[in-house]
Amino acid sequence: MEKDFGGFKGILIIGLGLIGGSLALNLKKEGYSGKIYGIDLNRNRIDYALKNGIIDYGYTEFKNIPWDDIDLVIIASPLKTFSKIGKEIKKYIKEGTVITDVGSVKGDLVKDLEEIFKPFKFIGGHPIAGTEKEGVENSVKGLFKNKKFILSTNYNLEDKDVKRVVKLWEDLGSKIEFINPKEHDFIFASVSHLPHAVAFAMVNTIANLSEKFDLDLFSYSGAGFKDFTRIAGSSPEIWKDIFLENKDNMVYTIEMYEKVLKELKDLIINEDEEGLKKYISKSREKRIDLDG
Amino acid sequence: MEKDFGGFKGILIIGLGLIGGSLALNLKKEGYSGKIYGIDLNRNRIDYALKNGIIDYGYTEFKNIPWDDIDLVIIASPLKTFSKIGKEIKKYIKEGTVITDVGSVKGDLVKDLEEIFKPFKFIGGHPIAGTEKEGVENSVKGLFKNKKFILSTNYNLEDKDVKRVVKLWEDLGSKIEFINPKEHDFIFASVSHLPHAVAFAMVNTIANLSEKFDLDLFSYSGAGFKDFTRIAGSSPEIWKDIFLENKDNMVYTIEMYEKVLKELKDLIINEDEEGLKKYISKSREKRIDLDG
Repeated sequence: MEKDFGGFKGILIIGLGLIGGSLALNLKKEGYSGKIYGIDLNRNRIDYALKNGIIDYGYTEFKNIPWDDIDLVIIASPLKTFSKIGKEIKKYIKEGTVITDVGSVKGDLVKDLEEIFKPFKFIGGHPIAGTEKEGVENSVKGLFKNKKFILSTNYNLEDKDVKRVVKLWEDLGSKIEFINPKEHDFIFASVSHLPHAVAFAMVNTIANLSEKFDLDLFSYSGAGFKDFTRIAGSSPEIWKDIFLENKDNMVYTIEMYEKVLKELKDLIINEDEEGLKKYISKSREKRIDLDG
Repeated sequence: MEKDFGGFKGILIIGLGLIGGSLALNLKKEGYSGKIYGIDLNRNRIDYALKNGIIDYGYTEFKNIPWDDIDLVIIASPLKTFSKIGKEIKKYIKEGTVITDVGSVKGDLVKDLEEIFKPFKFIGGHPIAGTEKEGVENSVKGLFKNKKFILSTNYNLEDKDVKRVVKLWEDLGSKIEFINPKEHDFIFASVSHLPHAVAFAMVNTIANLSEKFDLDLFSYSGAGFKDFTRIAGSSPEIWKDIFLENKDNMVYTIEMYEKVLKELKDLIINEDEEGLKKYISKSREKRIDLDG
């Protein structure tokens, strides 16, 4: 099917972070022919995006945006800002405008935003793509290509506006998958939010041990540790919101993790060679499957 | 100084795993002119190493080795085998032969081996290099170049045989650092063994959750999770030995980690936004320092 990015004529991206910036960049690169409007509290990001042709028009205040020219709003700011933004911009939006997002937590947030935006449609989405870097200046060409885009909405999947949002992501090269908002949050707590928590705790443990023993332990770390902790360099602003918005799943999965780590500790304490071999083999098999 | 690899004429490498194999490979590549003898229980590894010119002579039994031609023995097998090997080969070794190793745990093991090998010198070493792969067939060219080699011995650093072992690693391109055996084990428990434990537990948690909820959670993992768990694919045989040989430090550092992870969980439970921001910022700063 021909690329039409859902037929939207004017796309407003709220928040020119890594995802918002990459979205604008890749819409241009993939041939989107409408206009792209960007808004960010940080004037430098707007200037950067304008200077590099990533957006066509840039703003730092909602009231200055030519709302009549916008028919798709994509919220790409930290999760905590979503409801406030929704309440603020609803009065500006013109009839027929569709709202979507790229947030890492769906669940109750999607339900709340569907309510806030009614009669406009808020259609939740989550591209499974990113890096540990921040800001439009770190935008990545092809970031969404062959990556999953999780559609997570309570609207009917046959709804025409749902289909338009899906088409936009398909035209960016993403593979679309629907997951209901509640299940989405459990899944990504497990495979994304928990790993971030575990990595933050790992680096902080080494920091604490370094202080306690007055040793620069980090200077002894090898390639393994560096890979492992790449995600520990992620944004505090973004991740505190994710942890809090996905609180119940976070607590649940951290507690599962604590149990599984304690099993390993007990195997070591009991010098259970066979048990250790089994434990590590299980991890290894799963890990090798993942490469395959 | 001219490359002479410590002046050894015949080097026996016990265990043609990734490190033993890479050691042989890089001795050849860097211009070592003596002979390299390899022994491994696995005949296939010997055949592979001979066919690919990685070793000059290969064996599967100690009694068949021409011991009079050997003046350096490098033990590169799993930790658990060290003492047994020491007791077995001592009777074969000719006068003046030096013994060293590449094991990830030093501490009491070095002390024990120093005793076992006397009057021969066992000089403990630990190259900070490796991948999660196994076996001579995964040997890596340049693996030790610009990597740390930790000398960890109770012998005087001015001892001539200590200096010869150091020279060998310098000629392979490594940067030498001395750490006493006890401190070594705490440092590498923290920055290497604990991260492995944490990664094994991470993958096993996802495996358990997948089973429990009949969901293939792994299929939703992004690049972050994959990086993070690369080390979770490491060898059960090697890692059970490391955990057990470094038991006290493992239990101590896992318990530190448990405390730090619990802090994060409590911040989430208490919805402590500022505390979360501080916690994540600390991790991020340390992590970014590491790249610098």
